[in-house]
Amino acid sequence: MLKEIRNPNQLKSLSLQELESLAAEIREELVRTVSETGGHLASNLGVVELTLAMHYVYDCPEDRFVFDVGHQSYVHKLLTGRYEQFHTLRQAGGLSGFPDPAESPCDTFVAGHASTAISAALGMARSRELCGAGGRVVALVGDGALTGGVCYEALNDAGQSGVPLTVILNDNEMSISKNVGALSGYLSHLRQSRGYLAFKRGVRRWLEKIPKVGMPIFRFIEKLRDAVKSLFIGGQFFEALGFVYLGPIDGHDLRHLIRVLRRARADERPVLVHVVTQKGRGYQPAENHPDEFHGVAPFYIDSGRRRKREQEPSCGLLVAKQLAEMADGDSRICAITAAMPSGTGTEEFRQRHPERFYDVGIAEEHAVAMAAGMASAGMKPYVAIYSTFLQRSYDQILIDVCRCNLPVTFLIDRAGFVGADGRTHQGLFDLSYLRSVPGLIVAAPRDVRELKRMVALSAGVDGPMAIRYPRDGLDLGAAMASDGPLRVGEWELLSEGEDAMFFAAGPMVQLAMQASIKLAGRQIRAGVVDARFIKPMDARLLVEAARGAKLVVTLEENSVIGGLGEGIAHLLAESGLRVPTLILGAPDDYVEHARIEEQREGCGLSVAKVCERVAAALRAGDAK
Amino acid sequence: MLKEIRNPNQLKSLSLQELESLAAEIREELVRTVSETGGHLASNLGVVELTLAMHYVYDCPEDRFVFDVGHQSYVHKLLTGRYEQFHTLRQAGGLSGFPDPAESPCDTFVAGHASTAISAALGMARSRELCGAGGRVVALVGDGALTGGVCYEALNDAGQSGVPLTVILNDNEMSISKNVGALSGYLSHLRQSRGYLAFKRGVRRWLEKIPKVGMPIFRFIEKLRDAVKSLFIGGQFFEALGFVYLGPIDGHDLRHLIRVLRRARADERPVLVHVVTQKGRGYQPAENHPDEFHGVAPFYIDSGRRRKREQEPSCGLLVAKQLAEMADGDSRICAITAAMPSGTGTEEFRQRHPERFYDVGIAEEHAVAMAAGMASAGMKPYVAIYSTFLQRSYDQILIDVCRCNLPVTFLIDRAGFVGADGRTHQGLFDLSYLRSVPGLIVAAPRDVRELKRMVALSAGVDGPMAIRYPRDGLDLGAAMASDGPLRVGEWELLSEGEDAMFFAAGPMVQLAMQASIKLAGRQIRAGVVDARFIKPMDARLLVEAARGAKLVVTLEENSVIGGLGEGIAHLLAESGLRVPTLILGAPDDYVEHARIEEQREGCGLSVAKVCERVAAALRAGDAK
Repeated sequence: MLKEIRNPNQLKSLSLQELESLAAEIREELVRTVSETGGHLASNLGVVELTLAMHYVYDCPEDRFVFDVGHQSYVHKLLTGRYEQFHTLRQAGGLSGFPDPAESPCDTFVAGHASTAISAALGMARSRELCGAGGRVVALVGDGALTGGVCYEALNDAGQSGVPLTVILNDNEMSISKNVGALSGYLSHLRQSRGYLAFKRGVRRWLEKIPKVGMPIFRFIEKLRDAVKSLFIGGQFFEALGFVYLGPIDGHDLRHLIRVLRRARADERPVLVHVVTQKGRGYQPAENHPDEFHGVAPFYIDSGRRRKREQEPSCGLLVAKQLAEMADGDSRICAITAAMPSGTGTEEFRQRHPERFYDVGIAEEHAVAMAAGMASAGMKPYVAIYSTFLQRSYDQILIDVCRCNLPVTFLIDRAGFVGADGRTHQGLFDLSYLRSVPGLIVAAPRDVRELKRMVALSAGVDGPMAIRYPRDGLDLGAAMASDGPLRVGEWELLSEGEDAMFFAAGPMVQLAMQASIKLAGRQIRAGVVDARFIKPMDARLLVEAARGAKLVVTLEENSVIGGLGEGIAHLLAESGLRVPTLILGAPDDYVEHARIEEQREGCGLSVAKVCERVAAALRAGDAK
Repeated sequence: MLKEIRNPNQLKSLSLQELESLAAEIREELVRTVSETGGHLASNLGVVELTLAMHYVYDCPEDRFVFDVGHQSYVHKLLTGRYEQFHTLRQAGGLSGFPDPAESPCDTFVAGHASTAISAALGMARSRELCGAGGRVVALVGDGALTGGVCYEALNDAGQSGVPLTVILNDNEMSISKNVGALSGYLSHLRQSRGYLAFKRGVRRWLEKIPKVGMPIFRFIEKLRDAVKSLFIGGQFFEALGFVYLGPIDGHDLRHLIRVLRRARADERPVLVHVVTQKGRGYQPAENHPDEFHGVAPFYIDSGRRRKREQEPSCGLLVAKQLAEMADGDSRICAITAAMPSGTGTEEFRQRHPERFYDVGIAEEHAVAMAAGMASAGMKPYVAIYSTFLQRSYDQILIDVCRCNLPVTFLIDRAGFVGADGRTHQGLFDLSYLRSVPGLIVAAPRDVRELKRMVALSAGVDGPMAIRYPRDGLDLGAAMASDGPLRVGEWELLSEGEDAMFFAAGPMVQLAMQASIKLAGRQIRAGVVDARFIKPMDARLLVEAARGAKLVVTLEENSVIGGLGEGIAHLLAESGLRVPTLILGAPDDYVEHARIEEQREGCGLSVAKVCERVAAALRAGDAK
């Protein structure tokens, strides 16, 4: 049946029973595809009925759905004409793992980062009012995203505006990992203390047994409850913010979902529909371990086991282990993360020092400001956040931490290309937004050995510091390990070369070394400097190493704007040294989903392409 | 009496009557000093009794106060040994207008930007728990700051943590301008629907007339009310977030304040004390126009009138007027601001097009994400936010707006040096954090005539654009006006010169022109290019103009890291043109409060200093 759905309006002619078997078909398709491609599984399994009900009640693209973050939009993709391409999910050139207006008119907005959907939806609703256009706007937000302050800013604004707008709170009691924050307790209070869902199931089971009148009675009771519920059931939090609160509703009961969404659609006020879903629903391994199946690598359907064992421990895990050991001997060390204890590896720290570990939920701004408070009162906090999400905290880094020179260390995970998550998740901007922050030390290790030294170094730094690294740990081997002391702002000359001199940071050091070997085969002698501190830079070594070369080449896994390369161009310009400079890195653009190697290759960061650029630049220089 | 308070502990020996006359003395001092220096008046007048009560109940610096934003810390400064220096407020080398740990151990934290105090305070409270240190932590937050999402992230985390922490909500019913958002309605509901304060005053007045037993009865009633209030009075919003709610409390009733703060101090849980104060209290002009006396220039005490009339209309006002006119003919144009309708001049737009104007409160992230939503649904939103506050929206600019190439225009006010507000408010980073955003056009007009052309140009731009300008409009006159068409990415050659070539943006173009005239007197021929688009840059004109010069000089009112200068160094490096480059701008540091001219001078951005640097660089070049 799924195969034949080319347009979500086709759903409207289906019976409830047909919708239910379609739901089962969708679940099979989700598990089949994601087991091959990897991706976000558990959250999509949880919203199958909800998405069906949304498309049953609303008319896309005339009505607009805004998916917060967007990783829970797979069912929506399957229902809006993308069934045939679904197997290309997250592959280079294939479907994005997030909504994308370029794929379908039913995708109205790309969020990518959590908690902005209500803001965007409110903007759309206001636009429609101004334009006199029809159509409703619906934002679908997870309970995890609700810890993000932007959600609250938007609820506060929307509630007061009175604009018709429906926010569906997809409450699966567990955002990415265990949900945190007082509000999560409040939601569970709404869910449980009334015992509503359990009660409802009991009553239904009992009434079902009564022929003919049983189900009508049940439906009548439900309607009655809907009508009076806002008088009795919590929701004051949302009502204080100006929303009509409907819920909690069983997110796997299609009939009830449809009825409540119809009511929300008819309402001319801002409405919040509180839907309780089960993450991973219908696939046992995901039901049992919803956090492992949030974002998942390809797996065997039977067992749920990963197809490939991860070979290397992630950088985050290594750092967290080391930090936990350091914390044994230093009671000032504590760790903070924003809803990513397993993603950043800090779970490891939590196990050893639970009393010094803080998961603040999806609230990166608060995480950093809170760290500033801790540091100002004598602690030494380490804040582990992905590069792309740390963008949220730019102002707190600049004003709350660095303005006061507080000893907060940022552990910036997923820096550089991130692969299948694509454009909204690339860690390609942190060097740019951090390098202009006064007083912040910015470091990037070339491999896991260097990473270890940098983390050790950070313990003695009495000010703000950032260490950026990719997910996967690279080990260049003992032979390439540095044996000298590691000092803030000192680079390392790895090899000499009279023609070109590479200044590379992070994993790009390996690329520079490989390129220098290849170039040697073409009679081009290229040296390599590990520019491991992006700030402060080693002006002395820069000038010394650049002086003898015909060409300076900078290499970074970051936008070419505002990062290592421009910093080097700046220093060279001021030094008076007139040496041509090639600035290589990610382009000034958003880089699409693909494998990391494909992304590097696509951006010219492969050995062959780098060698080509260097040789061409040297030829151009000779010609002058 | 105030003169003798060197230490806040001295307050503890004062009687209630003495405290009350001290309050009057403080008000006089506030009005006297701020009438001379300018500064934040209304909010400080509102918290006189509250600050006294805080110092009466708590022990600073053992207990820690965190002032959100911090502009309401003048009374605290007067009570913590800074009475003698108070007249130097906001002057170069004098007291900061915000808390500063360098000034006093009683200043624990510099916030500067709104809504982070609860996060910082929670960090401190957690640190104290971990260290086993004593002392309480109190965050003082205005109702305006409560629209900021970080507040909510912090309340959510704090409420769940159960850490002892007191948040005082200073509810003056009007943050900077009129407060917005549903929560503000909720607060006023708490305040008014119970009629509590009015009732209390009536009862008190009545009981006061009864000799001897009257006041004891009144106090007994109050205590009783405190004891049972949480059963009856609202506060569910805060209670949903895990806080004990105490309030609302008359913020000018010292006795009651002291009692409630004592209770909060004794509580081992997170407590929110809701205090209602009157902004401007005790100074008639400020009571009548609290928004005008929020941040005020020097004024005459008798009348409250400004000492100097502002000569020029601000850039913001000019832009808003123009935008309002453009909106007459283009129904897609709308304006959004974040709690700054008068600061950004957009009030002007509101008056003409109230239905297309949105003040979302202190919620910059939401403002930008909402604009993205509006743009995605066909509108053309203009978002007016100060440079320093737009830092909050960096992620939304990058991910929600520019990732989808949506036609949102950012009107970046207060770009460059900002004067007396100092380090936390400088607009010296926007070129750095915006230049690496893919697809964003970044422009800076050299004067108001050019500003007008840029705003006009923006109407036809079908993608994201940012225009940055200072508060005060500079008019270089008709003779210096450009008559050619203005096209995105095109710079303008203003004058030729074989020795040096200036590439300047914004008001720095005037400095470059003045310097070129001075240099001519020293036989140095310097040309000037108006590099009005920081992105995209005019690579053709850059190379053409730089080719003939011995020295390239870049000039910007932005950090020298990541802005115009580095962009030019990047392009020059890649062009193969080997010309020495001098990158001039704000240093890689936080610039202290002073007058704007003093700040420019201090950063080497005066005509004399620029000429010196240029001459020296040319001499150094000749020597080679």
